Amino acid sequence: MGRRDPYIGVIGLGYVGLAYAIAFSLYGFKVFGVDIDSERIRAIKTGLVEDFPREVVSKALEESLVVSYDYDILKDADIVFIAVDTPTNPDASQDLSQILSALKSLAEVWKDLKYSYRVIVFKSTVLPGTTRRLADYAREILRLPVPDRVGIVYNPEFLRSDKALEDVLRPFRVVVGGIDDKSSNYVVELFREFYHRVGLDVPIFVVSPEEAELIKYASNIFLALKTLYGNIIGLVCKEIENCDAWKVMEIAGLDPRIGRSHIMPGMPYGGPCLVKDVLAFAHFVEKKTGIKFIRYIHEHNEMLIDRIVEEIEYMLGELQNKKIAVLGIAYKPGSSNIKDSQSIQLIMRLLSKGAEVYIHDVDSEALNKAKNLLKNVNMIYSYEQLKDVDIAIVTVKYNEYIRLAQQPYANTLLIDLTGALEDNDKIYRFYATSVKKVKNIKNLK
Amino acid sequence: MGRRDPYIGVIGLGYVGLAYAIAFSLYGFKVFGVDIDSERIRAIKTGLVEDFPREVVSKALEESLVVSYDYDILKDADIVFIAVDTPTNPDASQDLSQILSALKSLAEVWKDLKYSYRVIVFKSTVLPGTTRRLADYAREILRLPVPDRVGIVYNPEFLRSDKALEDVLRPFRVVVGGIDDKSSNYVVELFREFYHRVGLDVPIFVVSPEEAELIKYASNIFLALKTLYGNIIGLVCKEIENCDAWKVMEIAGLDPRIGRSHIMPGMPYGGPCLVKDVLAFAHFVEKKTGIKFIRYIHEHNEMLIDRIVEEIEYMLGELQNKKIAVLGIAYKPGSSNIKDSQSIQLIMRLLSKGAEVYIHDVDSEALNKAKNLLKNVNMIYSYEQLKDVDIAIVTVKYNEYIRLAQQPYANTLLIDLTGALEDNDKIYRFYATSVKKVKNIKNLK
Repeated sequence: MGRRDPYIGVIGLGYVGLAYAIAFSLYGFKVFGVDIDSERIRAIKTGLVEDFPREVVSKALEESLVVSYDYDILKDADIVFIAVDTPTNPDASQDLSQILSALKSLAEVWKDLKYSYRVIVFKSTVLPGTTRRLADYAREILRLPVPDRVGIVYNPEFLRSDKALEDVLRPFRVVVGGIDDKSSNYVVELFREFYHRVGLDVPIFVVSPEEAELIKYASNIFLALKTLYGNIIGLVCKEIENCDAWKVMEIAGLDPRIGRSHIMPGMPYGGPCLVKDVLAFAHFVEKKTGIKFIRYIHEHNEMLIDRIVEEIEYMLGELQNKKIAVLGIAYKPGSSNIKDSQSIQLIMRLLSKGAEVYIHDVDSEALNKAKNLLKNVNMIYSYEQLKDVDIAIVTVKYNEYIRLAQQPYANTLLIDLTGALEDNDKIYRFYATSVKKVKNIKNLK
Repeated sequence: MGRRDPYIGVIGLGYVGLAYAIAFSLYGFKVFGVDIDSERIRAIKTGLVEDFPREVVSKALEESLVVSYDYDILKDADIVFIAVDTPTNPDASQDLSQILSALKSLAEVWKDLKYSYRVIVFKSTVLPGTTRRLADYAREILRLPVPDRVGIVYNPEFLRSDKALEDVLRPFRVVVGGIDDKSSNYVVELFREFYHRVGLDVPIFVVSPEEAELIKYASNIFLALKTLYGNIIGLVCKEIENCDAWKVMEIAGLDPRIGRSHIMPGMPYGGPCLVKDVLAFAHFVEKKTGIKFIRYIHEHNEMLIDRIVEEIEYMLGELQNKKIAVLGIAYKPGSSNIKDSQSIQLIMRLLSKGAEVYIHDVDSEALNKAKNLLKNVNMIYSYEQLKDVDIAIVTVKYNEYIRLAQQPYANTLLIDLTGALEDNDKIYRFYATSVKKVKNIKNLK
């Protein structure tokens, strides 16, 4: 890199932005992180943010990381990563307002810049073609010529929310899609230097912004598709005697062309990325090509919750006033993220059927969030409460829930949607043959 | 194993049956192979069968392999593998007639058996539940009690037709689904001994017949789904500026949860297994669960050929009397198998539009088969003929076709459906940005 390391700015300190901010500062870069949410800034300053160990956040703050809700700290940033949300609108289009507003604020801060070269890197998931449109917008509002004085790059992230820092440090590949060579080269240089310090040889690909944007969707939607596929095979298994879907998919997954990740039947895919990404991409693909296949992925995934509810109705009869416990609220273990969690969908469906719902999550923050979001749910403070429910549904793979099934008070029928629980007469494994073992569930009604 | 190795019978000497017959005999087992097609038997005896090196077939025949169209040689076989075809009927149900007829013939041969235990192993792809129904059928027609004296097992194969022997010798896993423990154990013992001799530690799974049947479909249909997915991303790329689908999928595939196999855009999936398997499974899934998703895989795959034809029409205008070369007939390189080859579909579509079609395949047997199957096609005997066609379409990834693009006579526009050809102004890469380079293709009309 030039005379000194570039100063790095990060706008949006969710798990993506924060992971990069921490990673760069841990490896000697000066980092300025901005989030308009002052609560979030306060949380980061205390080191108490979900998905990141406190000592790692503190270490980054000690090293070089400065965080603020004030964009002014970005004045000297040579390269700014924008990692704000890009939610999907109800009409399935993409809401870019947070990116636009970040660009506007940055234009304000950079208005008096003298001679220098700056780079803006978009990390938010955006539909193919968006980066060039954002470059046009940047050209309008920045008082600096784009791309001569300001480079624009799309650089997708492939981070798991609960392993974001790990995924920044050990990516399968880095994809750099600049609107010109100068922009791309700047970012390639930065990542080369960064991974050199990390001590890892990471493949870095320079592609067009459109290719970079599409690689992100092509990757993410494939994982959603895999999850759906495993669940469809799961539903097929339920209709076949002597067929355990978990066993079937585990053995199928031994073929490395298939792989064992994302194919085990269980809950539908959910979480903060997949649902909105599939929806936005489905809309995009249909508009561009007329092909509905991606939309079908979304629709079939939605249908899976109906199937689960139907199964519970089959077991309990009318759900009106039935007491149902849902164990697991966040979209995966170790997370307190309940955004687009399929557990929430399930709970809402159960509530709409008149059930009394009792909820639990090992992560207390997830539980509190759910309490605020959902009306009329009851909290499970002690597993003893399970004695009094008609049925308990395990939706997130926590060891605690696995052990639960062995407790004496677990006389309640447990529905296992995770495949983690030991086979046991008291457990109704949603996708498994033991369904037949508890066929006298009819008596429960 | 007991006192001596079990004698092995194989019914159906297509690439699956033959691969096992050869493999077992190469590792010291006595093998009797039967195929009712006397031509096939003759071919095997001369060592000239596609997909198997002549010296390997000869070696097997020298060792212990006896082949015949006469079932009588199966009299002393302790274990018989049935590897005949199970085509899909026009109504998408599965045609089991070849299995039933094999069982009938075997019953005849085994009618005077004294005390002994025999095992029948089905290798043909059959829908879940079929093995137990076949066991019932065997119970009726065999004069021996099933399963006391005759064990029944489903043991799916996961062989690539052009690498069948290699795949028998180095499988990712062996799946054994017997109707009782005794049946399963017999087959497990045999494979354990076999892989012990091969010197390979192969995971062997004992499951129910239904699970074994489903594992086969779950694996195969996933690969079809992957191929479709890559092609859909390919079609999306065509509608985006600066987007090379091959590059996109190659980089996406670096994530091991995705993998690079089966995701490169190109021809729709085809060949002797995938098309019929998807169709049969789609029908099965819809009947069992009401879910249409698998059927959509089939429908979208069929649609891909339409898209290719539309593209050619866009380039050439009306296809009536246009001269079109199709390079590659078999469903993959190194194969002479044209069954359910998507090239054949493409050619038939072009013919129906009134085009004059010129065909070529590096494999002369594939070409001869196509000549017999298709009326009104012209053969390409020399690549010089390409000078006179309006367009040439490369459908199978052969080095010969790759080199072709560099020849002086290749002034003809080549459409590359394989991703293998070098980027070049004369080449129209179906899924790639260079489409835009040759946008003056309009002039071709």
